[in-house]
Amino acid sequence: MNNMEQQLPVYAVIMAGGVGSRFWPRSREKNPKQLLEIFGDGTMIQNTVKRLKGFIEERNVFVVTNKLQKNAIIKQLPNVPVENIIVEPVGRNTAPCIGLAALFIDRFDPKGIMVVLPADHLIGNEPEFIRILQTASQVAQITSGLVTIGIHPTHPETGYGYIQVKDRSEETQPVNIDGVFEVKTFAEKPNYATAVKFLESGDFFWNSGMFVWRVDTILNEVHKSLPELHAQLMNLQHSIGTPLFDQNLETTYGLIRGISIDYGVMEKAQRVYVVKGDFGWNDLGSWDEVNRLASKDEQGNHLHGKIIAVNSKNNYIHTSDKIVAVVGVDDLIVINTPDAIMICKKGASQDVKEIVDHLKRKQMNEYL
Amino acid sequence: MNNMEQQLPVYAVIMAGGVGSRFWPRSREKNPKQLLEIFGDGTMIQNTVKRLKGFIEERNVFVVTNKLQKNAIIKQLPNVPVENIIVEPVGRNTAPCIGLAALFIDRFDPKGIMVVLPADHLIGNEPEFIRILQTASQVAQITSGLVTIGIHPTHPETGYGYIQVKDRSEETQPVNIDGVFEVKTFAEKPNYATAVKFLESGDFFWNSGMFVWRVDTILNEVHKSLPELHAQLMNLQHSIGTPLFDQNLETTYGLIRGISIDYGVMEKAQRVYVVKGDFGWNDLGSWDEVNRLASKDEQGNHLHGKIIAVNSKNNYIHTSDKIVAVVGVDDLIVINTPDAIMICKKGASQDVKEIVDHLKRKQMNEYL
Repeated sequence: MNNMEQQLPVYAVIMAGGVGSRFWPRSREKNPKQLLEIFGDGTMIQNTVKRLKGFIEERNVFVVTNKLQKNAIIKQLPNVPVENIIVEPVGRNTAPCIGLAALFIDRFDPKGIMVVLPADHLIGNEPEFIRILQTASQVAQITSGLVTIGIHPTHPETGYGYIQVKDRSEETQPVNIDGVFEVKTFAEKPNYATAVKFLESGDFFWNSGMFVWRVDTILNEVHKSLPELHAQLMNLQHSIGTPLFDQNLETTYGLIRGISIDYGVMEKAQRVYVVKGDFGWNDLGSWDEVNRLASKDEQGNHLHGKIIAVNSKNNYIHTSDKIVAVVGVDDLIVINTPDAIMICKKGASQDVKEIVDHLKRKQMNEYL
Repeated sequence: MNNMEQQLPVYAVIMAGGVGSRFWPRSREKNPKQLLEIFGDGTMIQNTVKRLKGFIEERNVFVVTNKLQKNAIIKQLPNVPVENIIVEPVGRNTAPCIGLAALFIDRFDPKGIMVVLPADHLIGNEPEFIRILQTASQVAQITSGLVTIGIHPTHPETGYGYIQVKDRSEETQPVNIDGVFEVKTFAEKPNYATAVKFLESGDFFWNSGMFVWRVDTILNEVHKSLPELHAQLMNLQHSIGTPLFDQNLETTYGLIRGISIDYGVMEKAQRVYVVKGDFGWNDLGSWDEVNRLASKDEQGNHLHGKIIAVNSKNNYIHTSDKIVAVVGVDDLIVINTPDAIMICKKGASQDVKEIVDHLKRKQMNEYL
């Protein structure tokens, strides 16, 4: 099995267009979450590439991003070829993004395996993660199907989509590999009661947003499910690598309808598989999540930078410059950056994006 | 009565040596509370002088301070003669401070009336305040006694000292002026239960720390109760206004024992009177007190500067530069200054001084 996998040409497509508004004020349009060092050494996108080492070479890494982030990404990933940094003129959700990346790879390896990864996830057990991606690549190769990575759920999380798998008896084209299942259905983010049921049922996994398939497979599936998008992508194909491309892309993206790969393709496709993963995955969706994973002192505080804490416990405080002193406060997330201070009650950090919405409405662009 | 008062020569002695550590990070050693605009226009010391207008002329205002604050005070009070700014080499509590100021006035008006005022109190009803000071001056003149201003208590405050007055029947040298009483005893800051009893008894007032007496009276009382301090002051007397004075003061202050005027003189003296005042007094002892008096929006927030509040109520937020965004937080006091950020739970602001203690211990002098 290992021998076979090593022969497969595998490409990574890293989706790095987000602004990470839940991570304001550290995350900004020009310097979003994936370009930050949130944990330890290296930015999130650097670690996303680094952990593929030995499985996908950096020359086979493609990054889809936007104009604002392009230069920073080139700087942060010096070994990824500049021509592999694909710049969308505007964000149109994941289906166009993935289709565009597929076009780029299709030029020289139409049967290549694409591993699609968000740029801003945390992986605790990297060897296990690579093993899962290898299995998924094998499944994608054998079945010519769409493969997604499903995370074994540990609690009734309402912040993720879920994937329900078929019972072995229901499977129509079973793959006899341990931990690989046919998908029965995709479920949107549930409410709490539903999430509890999902967890109890045992046949639901968290949708990690990581996908594996062959280039020809995904382009065919886009053709079937999103024919308009497919035609738009085909219109672009001939100009890739020519001086016409940028203008062509700009015009085409102006017409493209934004749609997610889950909703636009995965939910409609026939051969969709899940490889079950359990490798310390975290999508780091909010400051609360960062706090949960952060180291703490005896008072339950995580203090980064010059900080004085008086009668205060269970706070996550990060300051880049000024000294921060807290007195008698518990359960706060405090983030101080060179131009902004954010103070959030623990548990409310999903609402940090409301600050960003407010800044947009008021056109306070210097803080976006 | 008015005619008589206008004939009295009255001097103000403003005690402005404090560092206001409960008002960190706005209050600093070089720029303490009394030199800040905490409410509305003008700094606290400017307003302390301004509200005396028509009663005490600025040329008759004396300020006792320290080296760090001297220049700022000269700048803030341009109409107070520079020679009236008295600089203590080191703080020795209120008795030496008041004794030193008395010496200065004694040189040209030994029978003058001294009104001793802290530099950092808030007065809501200024005409009533002046009326009370006029009454107190009259009592000081008539009785040759020590007069203190007692505030009618509105709640069982544990942060103030209290003054108990004699029943009219107990009075030995009654002054037949409404609202003027002989003092029975001074009480330290009480615990809550005692404060409740004080409030119920009806014969206790808050000790405002404002005093009125003749120069000769206070020097005599210091002589009686603190003979060592009196001798030390007398040693200074001959050199005031000469080039020897600074060195003399430095040497003398090195030997002086710190003691409060309350403990050292008032509690031991015979003829001590209270004039009862009710003029919207507030000693502005903490950020909580500032918050109580501040204007609020519909969510109960007081927001000064660039601030975004999401699902947050009853906060006091003051920012001098960076934008501050709060999410889901209630009952906080947030102060952002050019080099420091302080976040305090409402009700805990007495402990802000612990930050200053910590900074001192760690010799982080740039933040003091």
